[in-house]
Amino acid sequence: MKLCVIAGDGIGQEVVPQAVRVLQSMLPALQTVTADAGWATFQQQGTALPAATLAAARDCGAVLFGAVSSPARAVAGYRSPIVQLRRQLGCHANLRPTLSLPGCGLPGLDVLIVRENTEDLYVGEEHSDGDTATAVKRITRAASLRVAESAFALAAAAGRRRVTIVHKANILPLTDGLFRDCAREVATRYPQLQVDEMLVDTAALKLAQAPQAFDVLLAPNLYGDILSDLAAAFGGGLGVAASLNLGQGVAIAEPVHGSAPDIAGQGVANPVASLLSLAMLLRHHWQLPAFATQLELAVQHVLAAGTRTPDLGGSASTAAFCDAVMAAL
Amino acid sequence: MKLCVIAGDGIGQEVVPQAVRVLQSMLPALQTVTADAGWATFQQQGTALPAATLAAARDCGAVLFGAVSSPARAVAGYRSPIVQLRRQLGCHANLRPTLSLPGCGLPGLDVLIVRENTEDLYVGEEHSDGDTATAVKRITRAASLRVAESAFALAAAAGRRRVTIVHKANILPLTDGLFRDCAREVATRYPQLQVDEMLVDTAALKLAQAPQAFDVLLAPNLYGDILSDLAAAFGGGLGVAASLNLGQGVAIAEPVHGSAPDIAGQGVANPVASLLSLAMLLRHHWQLPAFATQLELAVQHVLAAGTRTPDLGGSASTAAFCDAVMAAL
Ligand SMILES: CC(C)[C@H](C(=O)O)[C@@H](O)C(=O)O
Ligand SMILES: CC(C)[C@H](C(=O)O)[C@@H](O)C(=O)O
Repeated sequence: MKLCVIAGDGIGQEVVPQAVRVLQSMLPALQTVTADAGWATFQQQGTALPAATLAAARDCGAVLFGAVSSPARAVAGYRSPIVQLRRQLGCHANLRPTLSLPGCGLPGLDVLIVRENTEDLYVGEEHSDGDTATAVKRITRAASLRVAESAFALAAAAGRRRVTIVHKANILPLTDGLFRDCAREVATRYPQLQVDEMLVDTAALKLAQAPQAFDVLLAPNLYGDILSDLAAAFGGGLGVAASLNLGQGVAIAEPVHGSAPDIAGQGVANPVASLLSLAMLLRHHWQLPAFATQLELAVQHVLAAGTRTPDLGGSASTAAFCDAVMAAL
Repeated sequence: MKLCVIAGDGIGQEVVPQAVRVLQSMLPALQTVTADAGWATFQQQGTALPAATLAAARDCGAVLFGAVSSPARAVAGYRSPIVQLRRQLGCHANLRPTLSLPGCGLPGLDVLIVRENTEDLYVGEEHSDGDTATAVKRITRAASLRVAESAFALAAAAGRRRVTIVHKANILPLTDGLFRDCAREVATRYPQLQVDEMLVDTAALKLAQAPQAFDVLLAPNLYGDILSDLAAAFGGGLGVAASLNLGQGVAIAEPVHGSAPDIAGQGVANPVASLLSLAMLLRHHWQLPAFATQLELAVQHVLAAGTRTPDLGGSASTAAFCDAVMAAL
């Protein structure tokens, strides 16, 4: 078992090594390969995702990606390394759970957003003549069926009850309509799951009003991006928001937060998002559900005992939190 | 003074006539012209926005648009009449306030979302070969400058302090970057206003965490659509969410809610969204701020006195609520 470790910029450099330390205590035989990506890498090497990093990620099959800074203004040649990695590795589904954790967020919350991860407006096809700029939103049958299949299969395997398809087909009948129709097609093979659909604006309203009322949401890339951040607000914020980018035999564990330059360098960033992302890697990629549960329970135990980083009102450092998790494993 | 009255479908047929009755009690000389649009109109006349309706809207310059139903599946020839009206009338800015009202929503809320109203993914340029569908997201300098000018001018005139530009320029540097840069350009002419910017996913998270922390948000069309529904969740819901589509010498007052088939026909739909949309028409289009304030205070007075429609936990009918508003004027 190998893990490609990409800490990135800012607090990525702090939470990733600590989370890896916890994982290594559970899996002493785990090999780790560190690799560079991000804004500092771009400034040093002229690319935000060096070929060596992509090769290491492919070779390992499993990646922990911390966080990267982006330039404030468009910079020629800079492309988001996480967006590139998702596409290059074929991580077609981005799983973004929001769960109630001890003492953070709303009680009774257990929402899973499954976000299509390779296309939509993220294809990076933009043109501009200075006065008019256009971007392509591309939706394909293949990618829509693939992510829907993952969403329904995961929902069924986890004993979930309902999948809500998110779209804006009243305005985008061909693109979002295709996404919706593919999801409906896949749904017919899962009669045990309820399926409904919701316009993205309505979904934002209802998530803000009663996030507990949702089960699984299946969304195209951009809506999934927006709605998963929205949902995270009710689950303890970005410090605890985990995600897994899942492909065929490859996966990227990715805390949802950014590089947080405001708190970087202080050693107080919350490692929970990284730890829970690694738990998702254990469960869905390495097929080690018992280890995943053990890690999740340890994190919950530490939070319940009142050990927290400052974003959750505590005073624990990143390292102290991880020490406590290792003690609780 | 003329008002083109488009009730539309479902509860549009209930809230619009009642709201117009209130307005007429304030402005006895107001001429009204009723016109058809929506799904029932499409089924009868083969178009959701008949030429006669567009002509009446243009002639009046002021429109009250209730709500329309859309087909559940793409129907050849059907295009959203409100999207067409906004573009055809050149209503370039969509003003969507969320305010604390007595007994509904969060206290201390006063957010104004200014949504670009004519382009972005709403241009309706989609293509599909069945397996791959694309849609064009178009951002122009002209439309971006125009909506930014409206947003900053309104913010300054209202004594507001801060305008937050919403975009996703880390993924869409040319399109969203153009929108952002145009807004920054306009901002330099309003030194009395603070300006900052936020990624749309972060904006969704922060709106969900602390909507009171925002002042004015300026957003491209689709993000404005999503974020304004999200904000409405904290202001008493869609029953009270008002909007004004503003152009040069033309405006469309539009409750944000839909046709609500689930409660249509019962006479209990909340007319507050329509009444407050008319107040925006009075203030921003007819330049009758005293009348606008009078109507807003009357609505607040009635809510404070406990008269509410069922969506707000009361038992008043649409008509009874409007009777109470007229008594309070
Ligand atoms: C950093 C950015 C490219 C990324 C995205 O939009 O996918 C982030 O917001 C996320 O959700 O992982
Ligand atoms: C009905 C739909 C076309 C419309 C939109 O997306 O603009 C609605 O959601 C709104 O916000 O007014």
